[in-house]
This record gives sequence, structure tokens and C-alpha cells, in this order.
Amino acid sequence: MQYMEKQLKVSKEIQSLIAERLPGHSLDAPFYLSPEIFELDIREIFSKHWIHVAVEPDIPEPGDYVTVEVGLNSIVVVRDDDMSVRAYHNVCRHRGARLCSEHKGSVGNLVCPYHQWTYNLTGELIHADHMGEKFDRSKHGLKPVHVENLAGLIFICLAEQPPQDFAVMRDAMAPYLLPHGLQDCKIAKQVDLIEEGNWKLTMENNRECYHCATNHPELTASLFEFGFGYQSAPGNAEQIAEFDRLAAQRCAEWEQGGLPSAEIERLDELVTGFRTQRLPLDRAGESQTLDGKVASGKLLGQFERADLGGLSFWTQPNSWHHFMSDHIVSFSVLPLSAERTLVRTKWLVHKDAREGIDYQLDNLTAVWNATNDQDKRLVELSQQGARSTAYQPGPYSPFTEGLVEKFCTWYVGRLSAGLSANLKSGSATTIAIAVEN
Amino acid sequence: MQYMEKQLKVSKEIQSLIAERLPGHSLDAPFYLSPEIFELDIREIFSKHWIHVAVEPDIPEPGDYVTVEVGLNSIVVVRDDDMSVRAYHNVCRHRGARLCSEHKGSVGNLVCPYHQWTYNLTGELIHADHMGEKFDRSKHGLKPVHVENLAGLIFICLAEQPPQDFAVMRDAMAPYLLPHGLQDCKIAKQVDLIEEGNWKLTMENNRECYHCATNHPELTASLFEFGFGYQSAPGNAEQIAEFDRLAAQRCAEWEQGGLPSAEIERLDELVTGFRTQRLPLDRAGESQTLDGKVASGKLLGQFERADLGGLSFWTQPNSWHHFMSDHIVSFSVLPLSAERTLVRTKWLVHKDAREGIDYQLDNLTAVWNATNDQDKRLVELSQQGARSTAYQPGPYSPFTEGLVEKFCTWYVGRLSAGLSANLKSGSATTIAIAVEN
Amino acid sequence: MQYMEKQLKVSKEIQSLIAERLPGHSLDAPFYLSPEIFELDIREIFSKHWIHVAVEPDIPEPGDYVTVEVGLNSIVVVRDDDMSVRAYHNVCRHRGARLCSEHKGSVGNLVCPYHQWTYNLTGELIHADHMGEKFDRSKHGLKPVHVENLAGLIFICLAEQPPQDFAVMRDAMAPYLLPHGLQDCKIAKQVDLIEEGNWKLTMENNRECYHCATNHPELTASLFEFGFGYQSAPGNAEQIAEFDRLAAQRCAEWEQGGLPSAEIERLDELVTGFRTQRLPLDRAGESQTLDGKVASGKLLGQFERADLGGLSFWTQPNSWHHFMSDHIVSFSVLPLSAERTLVRTKWLVHKDAREGIDYQLDNLTAVWNATNDQDKRLVELSQQGARSTAYQPGPYSPFTEGLVEKFCTWYVGRLSAGLSANLKSGSATTIAIAVEN
Ligand code: FES
Ligand code: FES
Ligand code: FES
Ligand SMILES: [Fe+3]
Ligand SMILES: [Fe+3]
Ligand SMILES: [Fe+3]
Repeated sequence: MQYMEKQLKVSKEIQSLIAERLPGHSLDAPFYLSPEIFELDIREIFSKHWIHVAVEPDIPEPGDYVTVEVGLNSIVVVRDDDMSVRAYHNVCRHRGARLCSEHKGSVGNLVCPYHQWTYNLTGELIHADHMGEKFDRSKHGLKPVHVENLAGLIFICLAEQPPQDFAVMRDAMAPYLLPHGLQDCKIAKQVDLIEEGNWKLTMENNRECYHCATNHPELTASLFEFGFGYQSAPGNAEQIAEFDRLAAQRCAEWEQGGLPSAEIERLDELVTGFRTQRLPLDRAGESQTLDGKVASGKLLGQFERADLGGLSFWTQPNSWHHFMSDHIVSFSVLPLSAERTLVRTKWLVHKDAREGIDYQLDNLTAVWNATNDQDKRLVELSQQGARSTAYQPGPYSPFTEGLVEKFCTWYVGRLSAGLSANLKSGSATTIAIAVEN
Repeated sequence: MQYMEKQLKVSKEIQSLIAERLPGHSLDAPFYLSPEIFELDIREIFSKHWIHVAVEPDIPEPGDYVTVEVGLNSIVVVRDDDMSVRAYHNVCRHRGARLCSEHKGSVGNLVCPYHQWTYNLTGELIHADHMGEKFDRSKHGLKPVHVENLAGLIFICLAEQPPQDFAVMRDAMAPYLLPHGLQDCKIAKQVDLIEEGNWKLTMENNRECYHCATNHPELTASLFEFGFGYQSAPGNAEQIAEFDRLAAQRCAEWEQGGLPSAEIERLDELVTGFRTQRLPLDRAGESQTLDGKVASGKLLGQFERADLGGLSFWTQPNSWHHFMSDHIVSFSVLPLSAERTLVRTKWLVHKDAREGIDYQLDNLTAVWNATNDQDKRLVELSQQGARSTAYQPGPYSPFTEGLVEKFCTWYVGRLSAGLSANLKSGSATTIAIAVEN
Repeated sequence: MQYMEKQLKVSKEIQSLIAERLPGHSLDAPFYLSPEIFELDIREIFSKHWIHVAVEPDIPEPGDYVTVEVGLNSIVVVRDDDMSVRAYHNVCRHRGARLCSEHKGSVGNLVCPYHQWTYNLTGELIHADHMGEKFDRSKHGLKPVHVENLAGLIFICLAEQPPQDFAVMRDAMAPYLLPHGLQDCKIAKQVDLIEEGNWKLTMENNRECYHCATNHPELTASLFEFGFGYQSAPGNAEQIAEFDRLAAQRCAEWEQGGLPSAEIERLDELVTGFRTQRLPLDRAGESQTLDGKVASGKLLGQFERADLGGLSFWTQPNSWHHFMSDHIVSFSVLPLSAERTLVRTKWLVHKDAREGIDYQLDNLTAVWNATNDQDKRLVELSQQGARSTAYQPGPYSPFTEGLVEKFCTWYVGRLSAGLSANLKSGSATTIAIAVEN
């Protein structure tokens, strides 16, 4: 009941902020600053939605695990002996010690370092010393976490009843993603970047390319900024028309070759919101590299040609991915506190590609390492601004920030839905106490 | 309305602390520790009074700017093309990014690093891409901040309606300050010192010399501690009488030479409280240096003689300045959090003085660098003490801590005035909610 | 009255947590995480009970002092000119500066570094400049703190009326401790270790040896894990019986030789709870060293034989000590914040023992330095786990965690007692306001 009460307690001030959000504008400052809203984000967004946290190549063999932090929760994602991917709260059922303190590893069983309670890979407590005759091991298994695996992208959901519409995303996306053979990839490089800003500023930054032209010289070497919506003007109308022609032509080609490429945009109408599109690339047109050529000579899947553009896949609330013919870049955003966010980037190549021969690590990672650093600075400048009493929500560009608006609409909608669901499920008395405070 | 409510919310506990302050004693511990009172200080003191933040030599040319942090607000102070000094909130009106992230610089326009919204030096938004036809640039200019320039000392006020009595201080002080020609100086050195203590402890420390004799050997080489009030006792009566004679005689001389020197003390009777006095110096009697001689051979203004003592100028709530014949030392205090304060010190010499020839930097800065370090330690020891449950407000010396008392009286009075003004301006309902919490 | 109100304010949520603690299980997560409960711990536990903070050899001579931090309070423990041990709040009665900023030192009087108010070693203000005729020095002495000295172990109590039953502990323990001659020891080494965890996790860790076998190879070289309760099982029944025989036999021997050795266990029935027992050691059986032999050739007290096992002494809420024939290891736990704790360890040898000749520092400290580092890791893993929403109080082993349960019972009982005492002493009105919030 304690827990229920805590679940329901949201201050009036925050309820108003949610109710009164001005459409088409950046969020009110407390959404970027308030520890109370941060807790709400963890509870309503990150604990009730499908969160991207890993890829299959993180855990190729039975017993391989990765741990991931979602707020103050630690989750261990592990491959069991039947090759299924499973996830558990990384918390011992005895006195609560963290089970796995490394980011990655490989185990036979999950053994608590404190008093050696031992859990098998399906989460059962199989050994606990000195607990006496009356102790029921079956009541002290690891707390499971839901897992979905979409073409090698691993998503978890901490809720007891996860959103049902993951299936919608899976059905739509599998045909786009599977040809890239993520399951047969290896992680060439992972970089964890900490941004001193709220996770939503990281996401907003990801959802527009209004800032690309002046901030991302490396990225825009291959990426057309026009792919993200632009206002025609005497200065660029011709370029935009040219881009549209190119995109339509390449899309038709790819689809004919069996690669779905058309845009699907369901960012704010689904609980498990997402968007995808395969877009042409500039220069050599093959990959998101400095010269636009493939970074890895060993192509993915069954691909025989390299000029497949970039298939982008964005998910609410915390990931995006670029699938090319030769490599995949996969991003997940993990909030650490109201003003701190982890951006985890993985570069994947075919598992048979040889470093130094088939690919050079520097070349593979050059574009997105530079881009991430640039975005980190922009996110941090936004965070600093949001702290000022002079900050007020500003207008999004109707041309280039439509997807930012969709992120905010989805976010505010999911908070509202979560709060009213809580109100319904709690008893009237409890609510009265809760909303009062 | 959200904002208004936030403005008014002050807990009952803090209202009592303000109402029940014991005169003649140091403040209650929460004034030095509480984050809630810190927010109140930023809102009622630092956002509604004239705050010293810069000197004209910080920004000699058009387009030169300095940024200054007041609480979590960042302000950019800039010289426009007409040579006027202007100040703005350093926050883009689009999505709120900080505009200038350097402490000092020079620009043509103020261009946001995120999406290149461009503001001219008078704060107008003159360029914003992709915002569509309906977008009204004139509604998205930078938020201005009031500026006053007193003989080269720059003050800002964040309030919509700044205190009217800046004019009283200006009228009184201009004749004292102008002869020192601050506008024709350059900054020889700036030191930013962070004290792990509340800003009011920094100010209290500045307002007495009870601690000088044992703590400041370098400062008291030239400064008579008697200038700050002393209790006559068999041991020092003669010295004090001697000092009084000297002060009266020098004051008469200086005034005759056209330099106003008599004390003006309006620290606690004005909203824009201040105090000044020209005091004789010990040893060579010329400057606040280790030997009492001028540190710079190039005298300021039109001065022809060096033995002009030290003209001190103290302002509420955050600055003090010492004007000598050869150099000026200017201090501003900027609160960073309840337990963290920035003390910014600038040493100014004539703009034609040559380093290494007319002055040596080490000699120029020796006294106040040492003194600042010593005061930092004392402030931090006070902060540590205030954290103890055993701390209780102690009695100020009626002889040597009169100006500390005046600082506290002014401070508590300004808080009270601010809170009752808020009560008057808000609607009854809003207040009822606000004071309840 | 302000202070009284603050004293009484405990949120309903925390009152329920205390009332609803599940016996036999680890505490609810907020007890390890909440800053509000941390304040309560400082106020109800660390400010109202006898806290172990020093040993006599810390301050052998008149004027010698140590400072110790209890929450945000700093206490100075000093030996006065009559060789009595005294303790004061380390806070000047003028403007509250910390008097002694070093951990250890030696002084004639306690002189405030700020304005030189001077207190003698019995806490009287004997000198204060410039305070005028009306100032009453006798009202501005240092605030005293109660001190007890049990065979050289120094305890303080910050309450006005300390628990009366210190005498019970003293009467019981003096015969056990005095033969070891702590007063004639010197501190060979002190190590301050900071654990990123709540102090109660440190204490729980100390109160069981369930975790010893796999985590403490150095400690279990000499220490039998069976001394702390074990479940007989086919695998260890014989070993346990053997240990019981050995313990009974050695205990009889030691008692015959004049050394009280039998267990006294009053951990949860006294306000000043404690436990003691002299236990046999493994290997050479002399001392808690890697080989079980004495680390110091100069035996303590009047001892003539080395095989005296280990006399352990545990106190609520914050200490434990191991007295051997040749050296003593003394631990005190000092909470720094809800998630940070200082563990201070002192190794004491006879004051005439010569380093490098009678003892080697590395050998003396090897076991407990290693053990402390291992325990630090375990405490931190527990803290990390407690932060998870998946954490829930888990069952203590009825065999090996009985003393952990007694610690928790004592702790929760003392909180309850403190809260109901506060309710009784405050006025009805005040309480109404306080518990509401
Ligand atoms: S905490 Fe995991 S076994 Fe004890
Ligand atoms: S935030 Fe400044 S231009 Fe977008
Ligand atoms: S604060 Fe101690 S003498 Fe002034
Ligand atoms: Fe970007
Ligand atoms: Fe000073
Ligand atoms: Fe241990």
C-alpha cells in the first residue's frame, strides 16, 4: 500500500504543467530540471514502455550477460542455455545486493557475491545456505523483466503488463531490418557518452536536423539534411526538389530489389511509437562515412551491392539506429538523473569482418563520434538555458521540427495516460491523500 | 500563473525566521544553509536589486561582451554599436540554448550555436530560418536586463521595475569616483575565487576588520584596522586617537585638493544601500600594497600626487571597491548555491600603464590575493560551524561589527519588503495556497 | 520553538515505515536511501545515544584533542589540564566558526581563528575583544557534550540527558577490557575508509559472518566463522561440534586464569546495547593475523601468555572492537550522508612496542585492511541494490543473521521510542502541525 501511495503521488503543480503544455513549443523548464518529474519519467515512461537496451551481439553465447541501468534500476540481460534472451532485476532476493557489477560478462549461474545465493539462468533460486527448513526457495527467484527481440534489437519493459502494440512495430519493421542480418554481426566498438542534460533534450536533439548544417560537418558529408523536412525558399527550392526526385527514384529501385524502403511514421499514435525510412546518401552514397563509401568490405546479410543508402529506425522513447549495407550504428539513451543522460552508441559490422583488413575502426566511427560530441555540447547548452528564469518554451519550426513536436506530444500523452490509469486503479481515499500533497 | 504561484510560495518556517531575527546577532543557520532561502535570496535580493557585475574596461569596444551568472541565470553584458552598455538574458528564444558560453568575447551579432537564430546588439531577432510566414520575429527578441553605469562600474537589475534610488547613489558617488578615471583603465588581472560558503558570510566577512589584525598581515601593512570602529581600551586608546587625528587632517587636505573624502553611510536606509570613505593608509601611505607605495607608476585620471589614501566604496548586496591613486581593486560576489559563492576580483591600472615597466603584476596583486585566500578560509570555517546543530546566532561586537549588523538589517528588511509586496500583488486565493505549503 | 517544531516533524510515510517493519527481514529501502530518515538517524540515534568516537591514546597529554564529525556536527574531544577527557561542540559562540579544523592537535586554549575568542580547556570563554561592558562571557562558553570513558574507549552523547544505562555496560565490560591495558597503548595506525552506503548497511555487515567464508580469506585464516551461529548440516555438523568443544574448553581455561570470557548479549534489550565474547582463534590461536601468531612481541597489560583468543566487543549503534593479547583493533562508524559512511579503524599496540622491532605495521594491519576493503565492496553492492524499485526486504537467516536482526530491532525500537517521547514533550498544537506535513 505504501508503494501504491508512492505510485500515485504527483504534485498539483506537475499535474498542471502536464495539462497545460503549449503545443508546438518546447517543454516548460521543470520538465528538464525537476527531480520530481525525473522520477515520474522513470516510473511512467521508462518503466512502462519498451526500452531499447542491447543488441543480440552483446550476448552471443549461453551465460553471456549485459547489465543496463534504467534510472536507479539495474537490469541484467542474459542468454539462457536454450539461447533465449531473458532479463531480470539485478538485485538479490536475500538482502538486495547487486548480483552482477560488471557491464558485461559470462556466467554459469547468477551467484550473489554477498552470501552466495545462487540463481540459474531462468531466474530460479537453486541454492541458499543456512535458511532453515521452512524457507521456500521458489518464492525467492529473481524478479523477471519482459524482453522482446526485434531482428536482433533487444527491448525490455519493466511493467507487469507491457504495451501490447510491440507486435505492430515488429510486424512493420522486421521486413526492413532482417535483410541487414544484425544477428550475424559483432560489436566493433561501443562508446558511452555522458551528457549533462535531461534525456528529453537528447531526444529532441535527435529528432531534427535543423541544427545539422552548421554543427555536423562530418555527418552532413553523407547525410542530406533535407530528409528531415525543410522550408522551401528561393535559396534551396531547387536543391530540395532535386533531393525529392533522388529519394523517390532510389526508393523505387530498392523496393524492386526486395528491400522495403518507404517511410512509416507512427511516432505519436502508438504507445510503442516508431518511424522508419530508407534514405539516399550523398557522395559515394553507400554509408554514413566521411567519404560516403562503405567502412567495411564485408557486406551484411546477403547484400551484393553497397549503395543501399541508410535505413533509419527511430523508437519512442529512447533509441535510433542506422542500418547500412556494411555496418549498423545503434543508439540507446538512458537517463541518469534529471540533468544527466547516458548515450550509448554501438557500431556493428559482419561478425566475419576483420579489423584492420575489412574495416578500420577510426574510419568506421569517425562520423558518429564527432556528431555525438557536437550534439552533447548542444544538449548541454540547452540544459544551461533551461535553468534560467528567463527560459520560456519557444516555438518549434513547422518545417524542420515536426518530429520533435511528435516526441513531445507522445511524451506528454504517455504521462497523462499513466497518471489517469493510476487514479483509476487506486482507491478513492488513497488518491485524495496523494493528489493533495 | 504557475510562475506567480512559485513566486509567492514561502514556507511558514522561513517567514518566521525572517520575522524573528534577533537584532545584533548573526543570522539563524538556515539563512546560510537552506536551499529554499537561497532561492529566495536569488529571487528577492539578487533579482530585484542593483547588482555589480562588471566594469567598463571589461568591454571597451562595440561587440565586446562578458557573461555573468546570477544564481542559475546567465546574463550577457555587451557594448552595442553606439557604445552603450546593454544586458540580456543569455538564453535563446527558440529552444533556450545558452547563446554565449565563454566568459568574455567579441561578436558582431549574438548568434545561437544551436539553430543560428541571430540577434543584433540591441537584442532584436534579425534572422531565424524555417519558421514560416506566420512567425513574428519582433516577439522573439532577447529578454533585456536593466543596466546602470556609475563612473565605469556596471550594475544590472533583473527586475521589471528596478529600485529608483540608484540615482541617489550615483549623485553621491560620482564626484568621489570620477577623478580616478576608471573608464580609462584596463584590467591588469582578474581572479575568480570560489568559497564553499553562503554569500552572506562572504559579505559579513567584508564588512568588518575585527578579524584583520591576526588574519591579514599583508592587508594591514597598509590598512589601519581602526578605520572600521574599535573599542578604546588602555591598550589602544592612544593609537586610535592618533588615527582619528591623522584621518581628519588628511581628509581636510584631500577635500581642499578637490577630492571628496568624507564618509557617507547609507547602508541600511536605502534600497540601493552604500557607504564610502577615503581613508589614510599606513607606511608610504599611497596604495594598498606591501610597502604602501604605488604599484603602478602611471597614475590614474589627472592625479599628480600619489598619497591619496584609499577611497573605499561598499554596496549592498554584493560589491566593494578600493580606488587608489595608481590602481583600483573591484570585487563582486556572486552566489552559486546555498553553500557556494564566487568572489571575482579585478585589479585595474591606467590603460597606458605597461606591465613589467610601470607595474609588476605580482606586486600589484600580492595584498588582495593573500587577503582573499585568508578570507576564503574564514568564510568556510563559518559555513562549517553553521551546519552544526550547536550553532546559534552569536552577538556582534557593538564596536567593530556595526557594518555587519547593517548588512543583516538591510538584508532581512529587503526580504520582508519583497514578501509583503508579493502578498499585495497576488490574488488572495493564490496566496492562501502559497503560504499554506 | 522553531527548533522544537523541527524536532517533531516526521512525515506520515516514515512513521508508517517504522511502525510496519517486517521482523526477520532487512529494512525497507527508504531506511537506506532517504535523506529525511538520515536526518532522523542523526537526531534520534546518533544524537541521543552513546557513540564511540575515540580511544584514550588519541589524546595522551593535556591539551591534546581529536575532532570527530557526527552528521554535520563537529565535536572536539580534548584532555584537560587535570587529565579528564572532555568534549565540546567545535563551534565558536561568536559567529559560529569552526574552532579546530584539524583532525588531531594539541593546544593550550581553544582559540577561534576568526576573531580570537579564547576558551580554556574546561570550555569557559576567557577572552573576547571589543565586546563592550555589558557582554557576559560566562554565557558564551563552549557547548559541552557528555563523555564516558570505558577502559580507554571514549564514548560521547550529544543529548542533554544521556541514557542512564551506560553504567550497566561499564560494570559488565570493565572486567573484560581492563586486563588488556588500552590506556597504556599507542595508536600504531589509523585508516579512514569511506563506504558509499548507508551506515546501517555497514553495521548489518558487521553483525554476521554468513559472508565471511567466501569473502574474507585473510580474516578467516584465524577467525572461526562458527562463532556467529551456523545451521548444522551433514556437511558441517562435526566441525561445529568440534568448535563448540574447543570454545568451551578455552573459555574455562581463560576464566580460571582471571580473564572473563563468557558471552554477554544485551544487544536489543538495553538502550546502550552491547555484546561481548572471548572466542578461540584458529592456527596459532594468538591473534587476528595471517598466521594466527601475535603481531607485536610486546604483550599488552600484564599478560604473560599470548594464546588468549580474541575478545570481541560490539556496541549499538556504531562500534566494534577486538582485544587480543598483543594488539587491539577498534572500529567506529560515522554516517556522513544517507549514502555515505566513514569507517575509522585503529590498530593499537603497547606504547613501548617499537615499530620494525616488536611489530611490523604491514603484518599488524594486513587482516583488517583486507577485510575492510572487502566489506566496503559488499556494503556498496547492497546500497546499489537498495536503490532499485525491485528491492524488497529479504529474509534474514535464522541461523547466521540473528545479530543483524537484533541490530534492526534495536534501531527501529529506538526510533519509535524517540518519536513517541517527542510527541509527549511537545504541545498538542505543535504536534498537530508537525505530523500533518
Ligand atoms: S544479499 Fe545476496 S546472498 Fe545475501
Ligand atoms: S535554440 Fe537557439 S536557435 Fe534554436
Ligand atoms: S567567530 Fe569565533 S571569534 Fe568570531
Ligand atoms: Fe545532431
Ligand atoms: Fe578579511
Ligand atoms: Fe565482513
